[in-house]
Amino acid sequence: MIEKGFAKTACLSILSAAMGIVGIFTVVAGQDRDFRDPEFTEKNQLIRPKNYREWIFVSSGLGMSYTQTTPTDGHRPSFDNVFVEPSAYRTFLRTGRWPDKTIFVLEVRSSSSHGSINLAGSFQDALVGVEAEVKDESRFPEKWAYFSFDENGRLKDTATALPKESCFSCHHTNGAVENTFTQFYPTLHPVAISKGTLNPGYKPDTSQK
Amino acid sequence: MIEKGFAKTACLSILSAAMGIVGIFTVVAGQDRDFRDPEFTEKNQLIRPKNYREWIFVSSGLGMSYTQTTPTDGHRPSFDNVFVEPSAYRTFLRTGRWPDKTIFVLEVRSSSSHGSINLAGSFQDALVGVEAEVKDESRFPEKWAYFSFDENGRLKDTATALPKESCFSCHHTNGAVENTFTQFYPTLHPVAISKGTLNPGYKPDTSQK
Repeated sequence: MIEKGFAKTACLSILSAAMGIVGIFTVVAGQDRDFRDPEFTEKNQLIRPKNYREWIFVSSGLGMSYTQTTPTDGHRPSFDNVFVEPSAYRTFLRTGRWPDKTIFVLEVRSSSSHGSINLAGSFQDALVGVEAEVKDESRFPEKWAYFSFDENGRLKDTATALPKESCFSCHHTNGAVENTFTQFYPTLHPVAISKGTLNPGYKPDTSQK
Repeated sequence: MIEKGFAKTACLSILSAAMGIVGIFTVVAGQDRDFRDPEFTEKNQLIRPKNYREWIFVSSGLGMSYTQTTPTDGHRPSFDNVFVEPSAYRTFLRTGRWPDKTIFVLEVRSSSSHGSINLAGSFQDALVGVEAEVKDESRFPEKWAYFSFDENGRLKDTATALPKESCFSCHHTNGAVENTFTQFYPTLHPVAISKGTLNPGYKPDTSQK
């Protein structure tokens, strides 16, 4: 299912709270969490979440890039789908902030234009890569860490935190809420605005019009 | 929040089962459904689901069109996000079929390219429209019905089923599983294939290469 050519597009345009295998919001039980927290190996490697497609979808983009051109390497641009663990989502809706153990997944998929009856535009196709962003205040000195499960065109089961210059620095500098790019999540950004939780130095638009 | 110009892009690329306000999968309780069924008025109008963003995301497309050109009316193409009510999703994973009361929502959002630090590609922006597809064997003679909540650039709270020629006919003719376009849902189509539930007349590709 995994194709070659992991797209280094918009580097983790995303992410956050406790992941889960149990797979349920706990409104029933009156709790705010029933998904599991992010799971790590003894060597501090993040275990790839298996059920992120059942988390909350926050947005997707096509060929997003923070440089002037989309690095498609001659291929069609990729879709980025961003999911966040449900209990973190619920906390964010209530507070405009991400709780400890927040986890996001960025899923990268190839795009196609012609298929079935579709003749124009782009639809999603094969899985290309999986990345994650985790907030863990006790595990990471900078609170947030970033992971890629891509390895030579396949997905690996665990990943070591990427060096700060890979994703952290950009997220830390440009994230609208803590390290997260809520500016690209159209249902979440208004929550942060209404709760007054945007980062003090956040600049709404630094792009070239 | 609702902009003018409801995009008649790929007409309900989607949809299906019981909607819900309670908001939980019922794995905890060992059930398969805890979201509410689609709700109708006494006049058989579908009440717009309010919490569909917490359902299961099945895929998104950008500017998808079943004709040669994307009808953007001079604007940037729109994103289509497709969500399905969680208990229907779980039934589909298990059986490859959609249960009675399945409900899908197609959310249409405008796209932007420049914003924050993004300089290329497309990300999602304002809400443009909401449509729905419902399977209700006792309510609709054809089992499936389609609804648009768009009204002069705003969202209305209830909608009457659209005439068959609006969406039903195309979905009925081209859907891969019953009336649904699983061929555009990359995590669901393989389930239908493995369960042997593709429609007998389904043609994988009728597009012009």
